[in-house]
Amino acid sequence: MTLPPPVVVLAPNSYKGSVSATAAAMAMAEGLARVWPDGERRICPMADGGEGTLDAVLSRGGRRGSARVSGASGAPLDAAFGLIEDDETAVVESAQVVGLTDASGTAVAAEQRSTRGLGELIRNLLDAGIRNFMIGLGGSSTNDAGAGMLAALGLKLVDAKGRDVQPTPLGLRTLAHVDAGTLDLRLPEVQITIMSDVTNPLCGERGATTIFGPQKGVAADRIAKVDAALARFAALAERAIGRSAKDRPGAGAAGGLGFALQLLGGELRSGAEVVADLLELDEVLDGAHWLITGEGRTDRQTLLGKAPIVAARHAAARGVPATLVSGSIDRLALPELGSHFASCHALAFGPATLEECVANAPAMLADTVEQLARLYQARVVE
Amino acid sequence: MTLPPPVVVLAPNSYKGSVSATAAAMAMAEGLARVWPDGERRICPMADGGEGTLDAVLSRGGRRGSARVSGASGAPLDAAFGLIEDDETAVVESAQVVGLTDASGTAVAAEQRSTRGLGELIRNLLDAGIRNFMIGLGGSSTNDAGAGMLAALGLKLVDAKGRDVQPTPLGLRTLAHVDAGTLDLRLPEVQITIMSDVTNPLCGERGATTIFGPQKGVAADRIAKVDAALARFAALAERAIGRSAKDRPGAGAAGGLGFALQLLGGELRSGAEVVADLLELDEVLDGAHWLITGEGRTDRQTLLGKAPIVAARHAAARGVPATLVSGSIDRLALPELGSHFASCHALAFGPATLEECVANAPAMLADTVEQLARLYQARVVE
Repeated sequence: MTLPPPVVVLAPNSYKGSVSATAAAMAMAEGLARVWPDGERRICPMADGGEGTLDAVLSRGGRRGSARVSGASGAPLDAAFGLIEDDETAVVESAQVVGLTDASGTAVAAEQRSTRGLGELIRNLLDAGIRNFMIGLGGSSTNDAGAGMLAALGLKLVDAKGRDVQPTPLGLRTLAHVDAGTLDLRLPEVQITIMSDVTNPLCGERGATTIFGPQKGVAADRIAKVDAALARFAALAERAIGRSAKDRPGAGAAGGLGFALQLLGGELRSGAEVVADLLELDEVLDGAHWLITGEGRTDRQTLLGKAPIVAARHAAARGVPATLVSGSIDRLALPELGSHFASCHALAFGPATLEECVANAPAMLADTVEQLARLYQARVVE
Repeated sequence: MTLPPPVVVLAPNSYKGSVSATAAAMAMAEGLARVWPDGERRICPMADGGEGTLDAVLSRGGRRGSARVSGASGAPLDAAFGLIEDDETAVVESAQVVGLTDASGTAVAAEQRSTRGLGELIRNLLDAGIRNFMIGLGGSSTNDAGAGMLAALGLKLVDAKGRDVQPTPLGLRTLAHVDAGTLDLRLPEVQITIMSDVTNPLCGERGATTIFGPQKGVAADRIAKVDAALARFAALAERAIGRSAKDRPGAGAAGGLGFALQLLGGELRSGAEVVADLLELDEVLDGAHWLITGEGRTDRQTLLGKAPIVAARHAAARGVPATLVSGSIDRLALPELGSHFASCHALAFGPATLEECVANAPAMLADTVEQLARLYQARVVE
């Protein structure tokens, strides 16, 4: 008895440093097409709110725009954004403005970087009539508690002598007063969804500076000073705006952007869950028989709600088995992964270096998925 | 609809330099047991006539013996053999006597090594009443055209002055006459099955010395001289015995043992096919749903009839899909492998060195097969 080809949903995350989610899904589709030329394949590239979120969301429609704003160092750059839902909602990736991979932004020291460009971008979009924002955190080079963004949106930051201070970790050290009366008047109309999987608070030993500061270049002997400057800014800003946010989960995301956006009323959600909603993953899964997802490296971190887990969860809710195909899988995590995935497989066809896997990822993805499809197909059903 | 656990035949070759065929099959069985604790698993370790053949054949019954004979250098060693079919048939691995991995045997130069120990072993077994021999070639350190074996069985080799010459490549250079009248009188009663996948003739540019001599240590500038000595020996031996063999396929196997054994009437067969017969693989496949095989490294060479291909061929004849799980697979061979295997998979769970794969092979085999079984199981059958 031969069964008809299954309907397969291809919903990988990006394979960081190698292929985008869309390219990965296309490579998987190629592998499936070799086994089931006439089979139905549904391409649904995933993301988790970090880099690649914009591409993933726009894969289902909407349009892409761009605005010239300040990067982390103040140098101008063109930041991409997306408009979806009849141009009513903007999708913003903070890494497009203050990305850790932007060489110009990281040319200045971490303590001099600012998120003001993100505030400029939001103001631009407010001017265009947008009131709904989906803002992805992740991959930022800044650690300013979102002071730059708030300053660009009108929050006044002055020192003891009433002089403007720079909205940077360094500038905030002389901050004395915060005035919210000058904030953009349209902000109360705004709905912000914050996409992040980080649950850290803004300050303290689990805070943004202590946990994420070092990888952004904050020197070990400066952590305490920067943390204190952010804490004072946060206290003053909370009082000025009349809302508290610094101890909320996710306040420490993206160097404290999570704090500033929650201070503006933003609601923190799992990035991958938001993307799954925007992509209507549940509808895509309707009538499907198999979901294939994946990412560059899968380990216990993945279990905390990264895109492949979210995709698998949606699949499970509809009775669709999910297979994981990653560049690399921590074998020790297999038992736990087993409660989310029907099966887990890596790309390598033998001993190989990371560089070889990265360079050949699309071809290896196609070959691996082809072999898995062949096995899926091979089962003798009597 | 959940289907009952499949009956799975585990028929891997050894993973050279890593795990034996039996250990590999056990590791695969462990992986399957995690998915189908009550499923039926049939362990059938394969071999191709080379190292591991004895272990594989004895896994289905028979008993193991050992005899003290001369190694390739003349130093004594204890060579294992197997007795099967009610002690009527002996299974001999030539690598047990003149193995390339025997340091004592390779302590002398390639031109001084001899297969006389194999003749001694055969004589021992003749004394014990054995007349059926299954002799596996492969992995030998010798290149004497089997002169040593024939000398130990009574063939007389003398120089122009009637003095005995050594049955080694060096000794054969002064060979003038061969006398078969002194050969063991029991040889005409003997049935020999030669297990080998090598099809090269004894001499010439596709011969044993030219093709396999260098990897045994024959110097490049000695190839022609050794080849000529073997050719003269072969011509004299053929005339003395009254049968020709030197141009037959496989005469060049195991440094010319293939020639000498065919000169005694031996029949050359694919090693893996003989093993499959001895293990009654067809009966083992009866009622099975899935066969899993594998080896250390799979590439186009595998297609020439190595154990995994033979296992897959037997499975195909009974409608049982075969899956290949190897330490490493040449991706470029996947299309051709696809006409033999339902699916092909490697052990690695990400970038890894050969050493890591070798060291962790049993655990990786269990994990990989578990994941494949999970996928096999996952298929939604409506």
